[in-house]
Amino acid sequence: MTVETTLGRYLLFLGDTVEPGYAKTAFGLRDWAGERCVGELALPAATVSTGLPSLSPQQAQAQGATALVIGVAAPGGLIPESWVPALLDGLEAGLDLVSGMHVKLAQVEPLRAAAERLGRRLIDIRTPPVNIPVASGRRRSGKRLLTVGTDCALGKKYTALALARALRARGVDADFRASGQTGILIAGGGMPIDAVVSDFVAGAAEMLSPAAAPHHLDVIEGQGSLFHPAYAGVSLGLLHGSQPDLFVVCHDPGRTHILGFGDTPLPSVEAVIAQTVALGRVTNPAIACAGVALNTSAMEADVAQAVIDALSQRLGLPVADPMRGGAAFDQLLNHIQERV
Amino acid sequence: MTVETTLGRYLLFLGDTVEPGYAKTAFGLRDWAGERCVGELALPAATVSTGLPSLSPQQAQAQGATALVIGVAAPGGLIPESWVPALLDGLEAGLDLVSGMHVKLAQVEPLRAAAERLGRRLIDIRTPPVNIPVASGRRRSGKRLLTVGTDCALGKKYTALALARALRARGVDADFRASGQTGILIAGGGMPIDAVVSDFVAGAAEMLSPAAAPHHLDVIEGQGSLFHPAYAGVSLGLLHGSQPDLFVVCHDPGRTHILGFGDTPLPSVEAVIAQTVALGRVTNPAIACAGVALNTSAMEADVAQAVIDALSQRLGLPVADPMRGGAAFDQLLNHIQERV
Repeated sequence: MTVETTLGRYLLFLGDTVEPGYAKTAFGLRDWAGERCVGELALPAATVSTGLPSLSPQQAQAQGATALVIGVAAPGGLIPESWVPALLDGLEAGLDLVSGMHVKLAQVEPLRAAAERLGRRLIDIRTPPVNIPVASGRRRSGKRLLTVGTDCALGKKYTALALARALRARGVDADFRASGQTGILIAGGGMPIDAVVSDFVAGAAEMLSPAAAPHHLDVIEGQGSLFHPAYAGVSLGLLHGSQPDLFVVCHDPGRTHILGFGDTPLPSVEAVIAQTVALGRVTNPAIACAGVALNTSAMEADVAQAVIDALSQRLGLPVADPMRGGAAFDQLLNHIQERV
Repeated sequence: MTVETTLGRYLLFLGDTVEPGYAKTAFGLRDWAGERCVGELALPAATVSTGLPSLSPQQAQAQGATALVIGVAAPGGLIPESWVPALLDGLEAGLDLVSGMHVKLAQVEPLRAAAERLGRRLIDIRTPPVNIPVASGRRRSGKRLLTVGTDCALGKKYTALALARALRARGVDADFRASGQTGILIAGGGMPIDAVVSDFVAGAAEMLSPAAAPHHLDVIEGQGSLFHPAYAGVSLGLLHGSQPDLFVVCHDPGRTHILGFGDTPLPSVEAVIAQTVALGRVTNPAIACAGVALNTSAMEADVAQAVIDALSQRLGLPVADPMRGGAAFDQLLNHIQERV
């Protein structure tokens, strides 16, 4: 019922990107589906790199790539004309094109024409399924955990992936549920929730984590933040439709303002917990915070540990950086496992 | 930039509707654009009536009607086959067709073919403009008031219309801003906010009430409720993009559960005030509740007055039923006027 995509082998296209924050899809695929990434392709002006081998489309195809994936977002959400020749090279070399942008690949006429001529596929991951229902609000069997955040782009997807992987390793029957384009490419399916018409967002979230066995756990990738000036509606619809039993707040302790919204201060972790509980109760009265995932990637290990300990003390909840793992992460996993 | 529609003269189509709650568009047009409604057209099974003269499409056209408006919603959001012959009669009689449903009129093949053959227009009011931007979150000049609710379908549109009309009568430079299909038909323009892709909901709300003169007041029609299991994402995006200085909570004191969601208790007015302030502060730190609009249409006048007085006492805020008017409504208007 949700969007499904084949688990192809990818050449990651980086365009002319100079801002690492715009390359979330490329980094996400490298980090979580590295075995399916054969290399990267960048234009001369690009300064961002995944560290994967730089390959031409022809080289990548010879090494088993099936598709060229647009691994970066362009400001404004459009496909710049400067990217088109490289994308056409990919089609000519025998690769399909994969995009997670709002704009559809076939809206770029040269791509549409070349794909048709060559018999290649243009795969738009951010196209929701048709006939998504209005949410029913009815409880369904199985357990659910949602990652929520103080902002965008601070680790909700990585946290969900890391939790699902670690819980499965402990024997928990857990699945990662992708709500964004990168997660969908990693998992091979999911729901591009921010591309769903707003009346149906909660209904789409219900589809994403359907009824399951009583002790099955869906670990659902969150989106945005309830305190985000542009995307909070997406976050709230996803919260209501997910009906989570547990949520983990993802936070970057170095961030003071909403990314790209310099006038909007970051909410506190406490405020996010309080609002998530107050609003999440509408569809799951038993909703509870399982802990906090801190993104400490910019910190030295000892500083990170001190920040983690201090916040855990303040909140009385497990706090960990899932990408560092360690004892703190084990405590967070214990806390979750006891409640599933 | 928002959706605009011509202010036509309408024949209101009621289908085979037996549930008055499904006829909100017909009643809204009758009550707020009565001078443009020449009559109604219902199928034999219908029990709902607007009280307007029952006319055939031919009679309506002869009396100046320019369009047949689908004034009811069908369960499931589709156009039932049983409606099609009457809609075709309308086209044959020289009327355009107007719909506010999610499904597009042209998706019904007989309607598409007949409109093309006859040169009539199929007007889908619930189609958002293209190229809605992501919200900027930037403050803009002018004042804004948003009606919010404890649920759907309890008076947010009527309250906004009544406030805008009464404030204009007092000399305030106020405009009604429609966020739903019925309001758009009444006002001749607006934004069908629940049909906007969720990533752009707050951006669409920013478009709906653009920068204006410092003492200009936009009175914005709210949608849904922050506590609605299916539609809260729409409500939150509209709240953030509207950046309201003031809000009025609309409430039906006889309702105990969310309409159509029998397991979900209605939130208290206090909870709606608290959440609206907590989340509205993200884009307007000065947001404040201006009062409460009670829908007392099911009560005798003396009971209504007692309920209004008791709630006003409890909250320390003006409370009124805008459709009853009177001294309580004057106090609510005074309270707003002092803050614009």
